[in-house]
Amino acid sequence: MKFTEIHSRDNTFVKDLRRLSRESGVYRRQGQVWLEGDHLCRAALARGLKPSVAVFAESFWPQVPVEWAQCASKVVVLADTLFADISGLESPARMGYLLPWSPSVTVQSGVPSVVLDRVQDAGNVGSILRSASAFGFRQVIALKGTAALWSQKVLRAGMGAHFALHLVEGVEADALAQLQVPLLVTSSHRGDLIHRAHLPWPCAWAMGHEGQGVGPAVEALAAQSVRIAQPGGEESLNVGAAAAICLHASAVSQAL
Amino acid sequence: MKFTEIHSRDNTFVKDLRRLSRESGVYRRQGQVWLEGDHLCRAALARGLKPSVAVFAESFWPQVPVEWAQCASKVVVLADTLFADISGLESPARMGYLLPWSPSVTVQSGVPSVVLDRVQDAGNVGSILRSASAFGFRQVIALKGTAALWSQKVLRAGMGAHFALHLVEGVEADALAQLQVPLLVTSSHRGDLIHRAHLPWPCAWAMGHEGQGVGPAVEALAAQSVRIAQPGGEESLNVGAAAAICLHASAVSQAL
Repeated sequence: MKFTEIHSRDNTFVKDLRRLSRESGVYRRQGQVWLEGDHLCRAALARGLKPSVAVFAESFWPQVPVEWAQCASKVVVLADTLFADISGLESPARMGYLLPWSPSVTVQSGVPSVVLDRVQDAGNVGSILRSASAFGFRQVIALKGTAALWSQKVLRAGMGAHFALHLVEGVEADALAQLQVPLLVTSSHRGDLIHRAHLPWPCAWAMGHEGQGVGPAVEALAAQSVRIAQPGGEESLNVGAAAAICLHASAVSQAL
Repeated sequence: MKFTEIHSRDNTFVKDLRRLSRESGVYRRQGQVWLEGDHLCRAALARGLKPSVAVFAESFWPQVPVEWAQCASKVVVLADTLFADISGLESPARMGYLLPWSPSVTVQSGVPSVVLDRVQDAGNVGSILRSASAFGFRQVIALKGTAALWSQKVLRAGMGAHFALHLVEGVEADALAQLQVPLLVTSSHRGDLIHRAHLPWPCAWAMGHEGQGVGPAVEALAAQSVRIAQPGGEESLNVGAAAAICLHASAVSQAL
């Protein structure tokens, strides 16, 4: 199989890839995302996505299953130290794909959705994408100010959920008019308890900023507020935890 | 009010504090934990805990409410640059407490509990502590190999839940015999769906390693397996998300 071997860190491809891997919003400028590690790469292939470039560490290259290389338009083999430097992880993977990416700002109407209103933490965003995908939601809309969905940290935490969802980012709250499904929010003091509430389907759940919650622009669009019973009396749950409970409740109330 | 002012980074107190703040397991050696920021400090005070030392940044010291200083046996005022260096956060807080800490290896019997079986990610551990506290669980047992409960990252993610819980760490699975409540685990293929299952109370939920799940030693002790319906067909949820669903289900089935 034809491949390009690179040993120099001054190579342009290497420099671009390093930036893409290390800086969270660079995928928007480069028009491509970096999937590191076999789990994410396999998840992308399983959804029929086609990498533009497959990148392997030199030490791994002799063992690479042929289909992991053949699926890409181009194969690059990097010196192990270069791969590790690009990765930035303590235990770097030894493979990755570059995937063409273009911004999507079109909100789909009528599909079960999750709205992220300035959720900051990449781990939380990734966890919510996984829950969304697991519970049958099809679209996630990240409003301006939310962590970059295709950054390495969110991709890692998302464990492949990105490829199962229609992802929109960088839009303002007024784009939510397009949703055309009831928008639900959680509240600490208003609405029915979620385990007793009648939940509409399809619907959209809004999840807010870790400190401030959902902002007034999104709140104003809400059709329904629900509360999560917290008998222990703590003031709030982690947003990824709250999202899991809400999305699960929607999924099971729909199945009943 | 009497206080000690420190401007030198070579000061022993500063060096110890820096290590305590920056290295995740050092609290065990020092016998004290570092609570940075007013949210954690207030949460500790609200639970009646008494800091040994209150530490303030110089620029904040003139505005410090007197009760935030009086509650501690000793007050230290640090040059702002020193405080920032100790913190390691991008936006360092300007106050913190040192709290005496001693290891607890005694598992309490008969109380609703959560068992962490080598959960690795500090954000996940913190999120689970918050959920445990919110949903009326009283004890969290971190088996050997779990992230250090009193590290800065877990403390930050826990948002004060630490102080509402009896926390045990560093024990082996055989210590769970002490629990004397039914141990529940989640499974991808066994047991009733959680929203239909009859859940015992009090109980203990076991949550496992992000990649491998609950290990065989804990699995063997389980009285009941439950499944979380995932109509979207994804293989797994984030462990913090799964914990939220399970602990919430216990809380509401108990309240019904």
